Amino acid sequence: MAPPPLTLTIDLGARSYPIHIGAGLLGDRARLEAGLPGGRLLIVSNVTVAPLYLARLRASLGSRADAECILADGEATKSLATLGLLYDRLAAARIGRDGAILALGGGVIGDVAGFAAATWQRGIACLQLPTTLLAQVDSSIGGKTAINHAAGKNLIGAFHQPVAVLADLDTLATLPDRELRAGLAEVIKSALIKDPGFLDWLEASLPKLLARDPAALAEAIRRACLIKAAIVVEDERESGARALLNFGHTFGHAIETASGYGEWLHGEAVAIGMVLAAETSARQGWLGRAEVLRVRTLLERAGLPVKAPRIGLARAHELMSLDKKAAGGRVRLVLLKSLGHAVFTGDYDGRALEAVLAEEVA
Amino acid sequence: MAPPPLTLTIDLGARSYPIHIGAGLLGDRARLEAGLPGGRLLIVSNVTVAPLYLARLRASLGSRADAECILADGEATKSLATLGLLYDRLAAARIGRDGAILALGGGVIGDVAGFAAATWQRGIACLQLPTTLLAQVDSSIGGKTAINHAAGKNLIGAFHQPVAVLADLDTLATLPDRELRAGLAEVIKSALIKDPGFLDWLEASLPKLLARDPAALAEAIRRACLIKAAIVVEDERESGARALLNFGHTFGHAIETASGYGEWLHGEAVAIGMVLAAETSARQGWLGRAEVLRVRTLLERAGLPVKAPRIGLARAHELMSLDKKAAGGRVRLVLLKSLGHAVFTGDYDGRALEAVLAEEVA
Repeated sequence: MAPPPLTLTIDLGARSYPIHIGAGLLGDRARLEAGLPGGRLLIVSNVTVAPLYLARLRASLGSRADAECILADGEATKSLATLGLLYDRLAAARIGRDGAILALGGGVIGDVAGFAAATWQRGIACLQLPTTLLAQVDSSIGGKTAINHAAGKNLIGAFHQPVAVLADLDTLATLPDRELRAGLAEVIKSALIKDPGFLDWLEASLPKLLARDPAALAEAIRRACLIKAAIVVEDERESGARALLNFGHTFGHAIETASGYGEWLHGEAVAIGMVLAAETSARQGWLGRAEVLRVRTLLERAGLPVKAPRIGLARAHELMSLDKKAAGGRVRLVLLKSLGHAVFTGDYDGRALEAVLAEEVA
Repeated sequence: MAPPPLTLTIDLGARSYPIHIGAGLLGDRARLEAGLPGGRLLIVSNVTVAPLYLARLRASLGSRADAECILADGEATKSLATLGLLYDRLAAARIGRDGAILALGGGVIGDVAGFAAATWQRGIACLQLPTTLLAQVDSSIGGKTAINHAAGKNLIGAFHQPVAVLADLDTLATLPDRELRAGLAEVIKSALIKDPGFLDWLEASLPKLLARDPAALAEAIRRACLIKAAIVVEDERESGARALLNFGHTFGHAIETASGYGEWLHGEAVAIGMVLAAETSARQGWLGRAEVLRVRTLLERAGLPVKAPRIGLARAHELMSLDKKAAGGRVRLVLLKSLGHAVFTGDYDGRALEAVLAEEVA
């Protein structure tokens, strides 16, 4: 017997919304309908997720769920071309300002469907139905929506909070191992930036998480969501604290872009990026070798990559300076003052960064 | 000797910004720089405006103004394809979060450049430099940005307030007569929805405005901007009062879409739309025949069209129900309770609307 869903709230005044975490949520008509406006709906999903869960969702929504757009799977779907397709479907389905998009899938679906919702008729409602661990703990929460540009990931986007997030734990049963591990990278990230106690818990609970123990997964998602929620509430539009969530991402985005989207899963690139950021932190004297080793070991135990591809110094520089975290030409980075305490700063020793890049990516 | 520029403020808390109205503003380095962030700039203009005013702007900005994107002229430029081109230029010019877009042109340039600014890196600064009367009194103010979709105008967009608006009156010297008149349509609109005294002034001052008397133009722009500013401050994201600014636009957009973009200027379509809205208001018993005639006469004296093209009842219905002002299947309209007092309402006699459509567009 599954426990009742747990609900957290992202408290953003008029833009506040609930995150429900639990089993059976795609079959929970009341919770699905609770935040939706009265107009027409468009379900956006992909060719992998739709065969597994679309019927369940449609059964819950009845005749309201008659319009859908099923996209290709993978990061390449976060494109201007996909956006054009979504706009065509929104027009064909006659979705007005009182309509909504339901994003059923992982981070890619949440990002591109969320961006379409942010910009159709200057913003319609979006209900996030994340089906991957990564999306449940990270990308579905906080209102960041985006597509990619050849010059970098997520360069085009908008802040647009969803009306609700329903993280149905049942959907994790069909998640490939590699994607489960990529999701764990973001869970580990949230512990590293903000919660040393959660880090201890993760080290102890990793075997259960890898075995997909439902109670352990629910607890990991809850704690990661709490950390993300606190940061989003503090800084909705990423002018300060929210940048901490990008721990590992400046390096990670450069790796993803240099390798071509699809070579690495986002969580995998972030895992490598976290190792590079931890190494850079160590060279500042902020972390000891034992702590860097603790980061590496946990990621390796989670089956995540910790070794950067040799993208070359020049390419790393180029990609990191166009990255959104560049300001006034100086790359600001999220680094660790200690395990569980991250800072977003341009005040670090540039030679430390250079030394790490020379060692890891040159 | 030109009088010093006049400055109004759009008071939106952290998103407040000034509107400067005056001669010589494109040469006013201090005012141009005042609101700009420190990063790189991209100037967006079109093939008509750039040869006239780009050099003046570049001279004011010096070496900062080394990146530009010159688009085709006309409504067809408000497309997803143009947006893709702008994103490519933003990437090539390495515009980061601390960068800005300068929109030098009319409403089309302001809308598409503003939307690119709203979505590049999830939002960068945009400085609006409107060069048409319509853009100076309406589209550059208030943060509405958009592109068109085949299914309708402005269906894709975002709310994104500029950092400042500089309306240089000198640019009106080169404005074609037809565009000057189209701009007057929006000026007349602002009087009709909110300010009977301004309507009196416009009836008296029309000959001076058509003769491009600088003092008369400055006063017309100032009063229209004051009306728009008050409404935008009251309702930034168009949940209520702001809809009044769409007086004539539900009909107008349908006419523009049915005729194909480019057949009518926006202000011309709005002029026709205002006549249809006034006629519908009269059939409710809200306006008398003399008042409808006063609206028609002023528009005709301004050289604006007042007769709708025969787009057909079915097409009018279809286009008006997809329009952004549709809610719950019922087309809400901006109608006049009296001259200078508009309401946004779904509470009108549907037969009155049908009768007007049957008479004017069938």
